[in-house]
Amino acid sequence: MNSHLNIPTSTNPRIVIVGGGFGGIELAQQLKNKPFQIVLLDKHNYHAFQPLLYQIATAGLESYSIASPYRALFDRHNNLIFRMAEVTEVLPSEQTIRTTIGDLKYDYLVIATGSTTNFFGMQDVKQHAMPMKSIPQALDIRSMLIQNFEKAVNLEHKSDEQESLIDIVIVGGGPTGIETAGALAELRNHVLPTDYPEIDFKMMDIYLVELGPRLLAGMSQEASSKTKEFLEELGVQVWLNTGLVSYDGYKAVFNNGKTILTTSLIYAAGVAGVVPAGFNKEAIGRGNRLSVDSKLRVKGFTNIFSIGDVASFIQEGKQVPLPMVAPVAMQMGTYLANYIKSGKDQYPDFVYKDEGSMATIGKHKAVVDLKYWKTQGTIAWFIWMFVHLMSLVGFGSKVFVFLRWTQAYLGSDKKHRLIIRPYRKPSAE
Amino acid sequence: MNSHLNIPTSTNPRIVIVGGGFGGIELAQQLKNKPFQIVLLDKHNYHAFQPLLYQIATAGLESYSIASPYRALFDRHNNLIFRMAEVTEVLPSEQTIRTTIGDLKYDYLVIATGSTTNFFGMQDVKQHAMPMKSIPQALDIRSMLIQNFEKAVNLEHKSDEQESLIDIVIVGGGPTGIETAGALAELRNHVLPTDYPEIDFKMMDIYLVELGPRLLAGMSQEASSKTKEFLEELGVQVWLNTGLVSYDGYKAVFNNGKTILTTSLIYAAGVAGVVPAGFNKEAIGRGNRLSVDSKLRVKGFTNIFSIGDVASFIQEGKQVPLPMVAPVAMQMGTYLANYIKSGKDQYPDFVYKDEGSMATIGKHKAVVDLKYWKTQGTIAWFIWMFVHLMSLVGFGSKVFVFLRWTQAYLGSDKKHRLIIRPYRKPSAE
Repeated sequence: MNSHLNIPTSTNPRIVIVGGGFGGIELAQQLKNKPFQIVLLDKHNYHAFQPLLYQIATAGLESYSIASPYRALFDRHNNLIFRMAEVTEVLPSEQTIRTTIGDLKYDYLVIATGSTTNFFGMQDVKQHAMPMKSIPQALDIRSMLIQNFEKAVNLEHKSDEQESLIDIVIVGGGPTGIETAGALAELRNHVLPTDYPEIDFKMMDIYLVELGPRLLAGMSQEASSKTKEFLEELGVQVWLNTGLVSYDGYKAVFNNGKTILTTSLIYAAGVAGVVPAGFNKEAIGRGNRLSVDSKLRVKGFTNIFSIGDVASFIQEGKQVPLPMVAPVAMQMGTYLANYIKSGKDQYPDFVYKDEGSMATIGKHKAVVDLKYWKTQGTIAWFIWMFVHLMSLVGFGSKVFVFLRWTQAYLGSDKKHRLIIRPYRKPSAE
Repeated sequence: MNSHLNIPTSTNPRIVIVGGGFGGIELAQQLKNKPFQIVLLDKHNYHAFQPLLYQIATAGLESYSIASPYRALFDRHNNLIFRMAEVTEVLPSEQTIRTTIGDLKYDYLVIATGSTTNFFGMQDVKQHAMPMKSIPQALDIRSMLIQNFEKAVNLEHKSDEQESLIDIVIVGGGPTGIETAGALAELRNHVLPTDYPEIDFKMMDIYLVELGPRLLAGMSQEASSKTKEFLEELGVQVWLNTGLVSYDGYKAVFNNGKTILTTSLIYAAGVAGVVPAGFNKEAIGRGNRLSVDSKLRVKGFTNIFSIGDVASFIQEGKQVPLPMVAPVAMQMGTYLANYIKSGKDQYPDFVYKDEGSMATIGKHKAVVDLKYWKTQGTIAWFIWMFVHLMSLVGFGSKVFVFLRWTQAYLGSDKKHRLIIRPYRKPSAE
């Protein structure tokens, strides 16, 4: 399409933000009602609170609890225009982007397109495994799991076919992998036996497979060890130093020589940046991320910025880029807003302030690394709960989401185990 | 598949209930822990509170508020086995049903398969219109409407293309049609202008088209007239005595010579019974429903019953069958449970006790027909709210659903306007 986006002209400079993840919305919030015309583009009509996607997949929360429509989020911003669209190409020489609904000129462009699942070229895994980077994908996982149990009840006890429908493999020992494994183990231990008295859940195996030598590689050694211990207490089989070799939708083969029969392989092992066409090789670094300088400008440009997962920023004195996590994205958003508002070229560099990190494995089982304090277990779990609830209640109708979530998480609410849209396996290509 | 369903043998007679709508679950509830083996089959894993489907379609409620997983609903029944399956054929000579997951013998069979949308042979309408008989269909309507608004904002003001994305036609002036029209009118009047300041909602037309001479043909003349008046107050254009002739996904043609350009045509004009294969012509009556006698036995059988929408029961002294509504289904379920429990052939006939009917058009706008009292307006609306809330809070976590629903219905909650799974128009066949 070569038509133009239907955006009113403005005397203020136009900042186009591509992507409404943590970075994009933080930037937009900080520019609220400032003398810029903000155009926010996203392929979804809502911002998703990604750290809790695993709760959608494991039927702990309903979508609306972790999603907030952009039009509601920004209804008091008089300088922001939202459009649901994907950017297909950037044309820097014309200060224009090409999108699925037309072209648009920009004064400043901010690429905040985030990351997607990286299958490292394994086509069979890409076709048959379930990624978990969006709400529709998380809902697909939920539907698939429940459909599998419903099928399994009618099959011969402990047959290969029945076991393959019940056993679950999670590939990737990062936060998403360990939180999903923990939540599934708790479902198996406390909820599923009541739902499916026909099935002997002692035979349900949950495997967490990690290529590296430890779980949560981004956290401390204490956090890693304790996470493995917590998962094993819950009955998860943790395989370290193990890579997935192939998966045909039924048989998963690993480089330790072992094979698992499963129809449910959740893939959370790799991510890569999502970069629109139009950038040259110099701008794109490892993991398909845009290399940014100390002002978050994409290499080679003065009015194109990048923040969040897609931005590869190497802090002074470090060897590797900052991790692809929400706090980095949000701090980048805040910095960029201040930098643009300042209107100055001479401006302090971006410096990431690491506030620590945390992950939860299950009820009363979490790990927290702060700068001067590390803790694991019940206290860590309360810290995790507090931080996530506080972040989440920024979303819409605060009190209700708070109560609903507390009830859903603490109680044994059964309302979410609905196959509201059946999952269908993609047909072979 | 010719394998058998994996159901344990029992010394008690086996009652197979096909379909977990209002009739099926009422029957199962009344037989709780009685000396029968109940096998409940349904193609979904949850019971849906159908009268509120329009709230899902118009983004007023989330699915879990009106759906209840069978396994949670019946977790205290020690004589009930649920299986997610569709019945493909009944083999009465072998007392067996054939299902998508295997065959099953029965002692008593209860067909409670409900009804589906009847397009009266109009293939183009079937392909392009949106029916609303299930939660996935209602979610599709919601996604389609929001996607259309998101598209419309980028189009030329008042162009044909923009108007076709915004105007909505609802075909069918029964309860579903009028409740949907009312809810959409309220969205247009109060909610959408804030979400989409780019669109002039004065140009958004909502049409309600009914083939007969009045709306809500099953209710009193007063209710019909007042409903039309309420809808017109809300700005809905009501066309009576008008039939849909054709619809190609863009242009809807009516037998009054008029044409409306719309990409959103919601079809709620006709229903037909869903009857599994295996019944002969004598058993199947008008509207593809199973003719049942005064004991709810399907014509020609002594151990096959039918209840709910799919059952065509003509009360003593009446000309037409009972209407396809929830109270009929529930009373049939209760009667059948008592009849089967009695074990007697000599048993009083089924008699439907009409408790009245009601429908809501919008806030403070409802119509109620009771036996000795008819009322329309605010009092009717409070009665409608009370009755529906009381029915609904039977579902799962009562207090939360009650609060959530009250808030969602009374407030201006914006949380549900999420395109969590994009709707894709079916491709031409």
